[in-house]
Amino acid sequence: MAGDGNTPVAMPNDPRMRGFRSRTGVDEAVATIVGRVRALGAESIDAAQAAGRILAIEVVAGEPVPPFDRAAMDGYAVRGEETFGASSYNPARFRLVGTARPGHACHVEVGPGEAIQIATGSALPRGADTVVKVESTHLEDDAVWVSEPTPPGRHVGRRGEDIAAGTVVLKAGRVLRPQDLGVLSSIAARSIDVVRRPDVAVIITGDELLPPGTPALGSQIADANSVMLAALIARDGGIARVIGPLPDDRDRIRREIADASASADAVLISGGSSAGPEDHAPGLVAELGELAVHGVALRPAGPAGIGFLGERGVPVVLLPGNPVSCLCAYDFFGGPIVRLLGGRPRGWPYRSSSFPMARKLVSVVGRVDYARVRIVQDRVEPLAISGASILSSTTRADGFVVVPADLEGYPIGANVTVWLYDSYSSTDPS
Amino acid sequence: MAGDGNTPVAMPNDPRMRGFRSRTGVDEAVATIVGRVRALGAESIDAAQAAGRILAIEVVAGEPVPPFDRAAMDGYAVRGEETFGASSYNPARFRLVGTARPGHACHVEVGPGEAIQIATGSALPRGADTVVKVESTHLEDDAVWVSEPTPPGRHVGRRGEDIAAGTVVLKAGRVLRPQDLGVLSSIAARSIDVVRRPDVAVIITGDELLPPGTPALGSQIADANSVMLAALIARDGGIARVIGPLPDDRDRIRREIADASASADAVLISGGSSAGPEDHAPGLVAELGELAVHGVALRPAGPAGIGFLGERGVPVVLLPGNPVSCLCAYDFFGGPIVRLLGGRPRGWPYRSSSFPMARKLVSVVGRVDYARVRIVQDRVEPLAISGASILSSTTRADGFVVVPADLEGYPIGANVTVWLYDSYSSTDPS
Repeated sequence: MAGDGNTPVAMPNDPRMRGFRSRTGVDEAVATIVGRVRALGAESIDAAQAAGRILAIEVVAGEPVPPFDRAAMDGYAVRGEETFGASSYNPARFRLVGTARPGHACHVEVGPGEAIQIATGSALPRGADTVVKVESTHLEDDAVWVSEPTPPGRHVGRRGEDIAAGTVVLKAGRVLRPQDLGVLSSIAARSIDVVRRPDVAVIITGDELLPPGTPALGSQIADANSVMLAALIARDGGIARVIGPLPDDRDRIRREIADASASADAVLISGGSSAGPEDHAPGLVAELGELAVHGVALRPAGPAGIGFLGERGVPVVLLPGNPVSCLCAYDFFGGPIVRLLGGRPRGWPYRSSSFPMARKLVSVVGRVDYARVRIVQDRVEPLAISGASILSSTTRADGFVVVPADLEGYPIGANVTVWLYDSYSSTDPS
Repeated sequence: MAGDGNTPVAMPNDPRMRGFRSRTGVDEAVATIVGRVRALGAESIDAAQAAGRILAIEVVAGEPVPPFDRAAMDGYAVRGEETFGASSYNPARFRLVGTARPGHACHVEVGPGEAIQIATGSALPRGADTVVKVESTHLEDDAVWVSEPTPPGRHVGRRGEDIAAGTVVLKAGRVLRPQDLGVLSSIAARSIDVVRRPDVAVIITGDELLPPGTPALGSQIADANSVMLAALIARDGGIARVIGPLPDDRDRIRREIADASASADAVLISGGSSAGPEDHAPGLVAELGELAVHGVALRPAGPAGIGFLGERGVPVVLLPGNPVSCLCAYDFFGGPIVRLLGGRPRGWPYRSSSFPMARKLVSVVGRVDYARVRIVQDRVEPLAISGASILSSTTRADGFVVVPADLEGYPIGANVTVWLYDSYSSTDPS
């Protein structure tokens, strides 16, 4: 990894160290992605394992739910018209001729003046058309006294009332909920077609990098990006495949990018994304495909890039090696690619909430700013960040504020949208 | 499964069919859980796999980040005081004596009047105390001309500036974020202590039930609850172990509950939760432990129950077999238990948002109502539900509104809190 290159333009004359001639706006960079990245194809999976997956093809009910008329209450199955006029002063008498329990066929038919004791969920016996609820009855030996008129169809769940056969139950694009799996089970949809999970190659480069979790040694430090990126990709529904850390060896990196572009659905390259002499990634992407964007008006991820590799046009993102810049570039470019490939909404999977600024938030006109903030007493405190390299700023922060390129920040008291890193607040309902 | 028993009191004289004498309030039922359910113990896991897990013990940095002073910009490492007075009209001249790259030890020391070319992330060479950014320099053969005064410490990331050794980096109870894994890697925390994932036994009962996804046959239907509950438990950080579907055989169910209470961290029993003759679960829980709550003033999950099994006091929830009631009872009682055992916030993992009612929402005083609703043009439409058994109401709904027990509903235009079933909206930022 070389130059973070956050300072724009101002070309030095040293050919080994270059800034960016110009930077692409964030909106334009995102438009490059949106214009070209499409959802992957479908795969059939066990419906019981499909929670959180994206439905590729709508599901039509092959079976009605419920599959038969059934009791919606505990009580007595009778012919409803025979209860008309019944009251507690003048109860109607029925003869108990059987019992219906869920899961057991009731072979007794309900004739005139007859009742069958029935429990919720049982199939309604032939001959009966209503269920008198148990609270409106009185049992005396084999006589059932009914004290409430109960018209036909009352307390009966009709066949197909929940889901009629032929109904579209779930539409394509649906993020499957736990209860959706229940519905799929009920209509006997045992396997369903969901969007394939994107296979994302994560290539980590940098002579200075040791494997994650390794104590720093000499001038080398542990790679932090692969573990962060793998978790982000999993959160966004992808499957990460980490390659590296690799040394800044152009041929080796070229080989890995070429291999990944042949097998993966997307490629993320961490490190070597800028315009310095050891920044091999941009040139290699241009060689192996198209470098559509290089250098973005985004702080702290200016040296990010976007490209497309090989004949399949596999999307590739150049992520700065600096961990905060890497997170920022993933949030703006990597995440949308993974989510779009997986058929998910492109937008951030972060809750957002609006709060007033507790202090001034300073930004630079001409660049979008990804400012880490804390929420203190329902007000937004910018974290004082001396550099993009402070990874702990993203762990101390509650979330981030995006300052648009045309603003020089926000004054005290301005209401801003905060994107919260944690999925759920710890506020307890009830 | 027998009586859904949503109608309160009104005891019939039929001893085989009983309602509930009284119902416990939702708050009181939840208080039973909160008073007795504690987070499980810790287990050590690979920090790289810990995203979404709950930190059991705080993490203290054993290593500083960065582990050495390093360049935060591309440029030249010099002695800062020698740049004082420099300007573009009067640049200061330095002699280039070497190069520092990330990951490579630089053995050259910077003496008076000397400069070392340095790339971002490289260790600062001995003798230098600042980095002049490349844009403020001009290279001519081996002469570096500096045109901007750069005091000592400028563009240098100090050892420990991000994280000082000995700092508490992440506190106990933290839901680990992707970037937290990056920090853990940087401080060489290779394994960490997280709260063990709750092992949740899910016992499915009911003579009427076939395995999930099976076409209905005669008076039998596919079990929908096990697949829904397994997904809900996984969402809440637990590991579901499904037992059944079991027939309504008291001895068999007793054996499974006893086995589960010896091995699992929590037990959920679906079906047979009410007060009818085939409702074995409440009596068995009372036999094998304590039935703390049975019958809750909650629609549509009135026949729910809460208990504690065996000497370990393993929490158990009786869930009505009806899938909507089952979901409701899980949301109110099962979910909080799984989350508390796993060290998570007890509250719902649903986003909430406030909208006005498009129509009147009718409820019954004395019971909390779990009303499924849709959001149509930013207004809340209650779903017309004829019974608790309409599982598709939970898939057609965008979320639910909780009507407190002391209200008879909400009028048109009233602002209500909607708990949204989907984690994220599909609104795109930027």
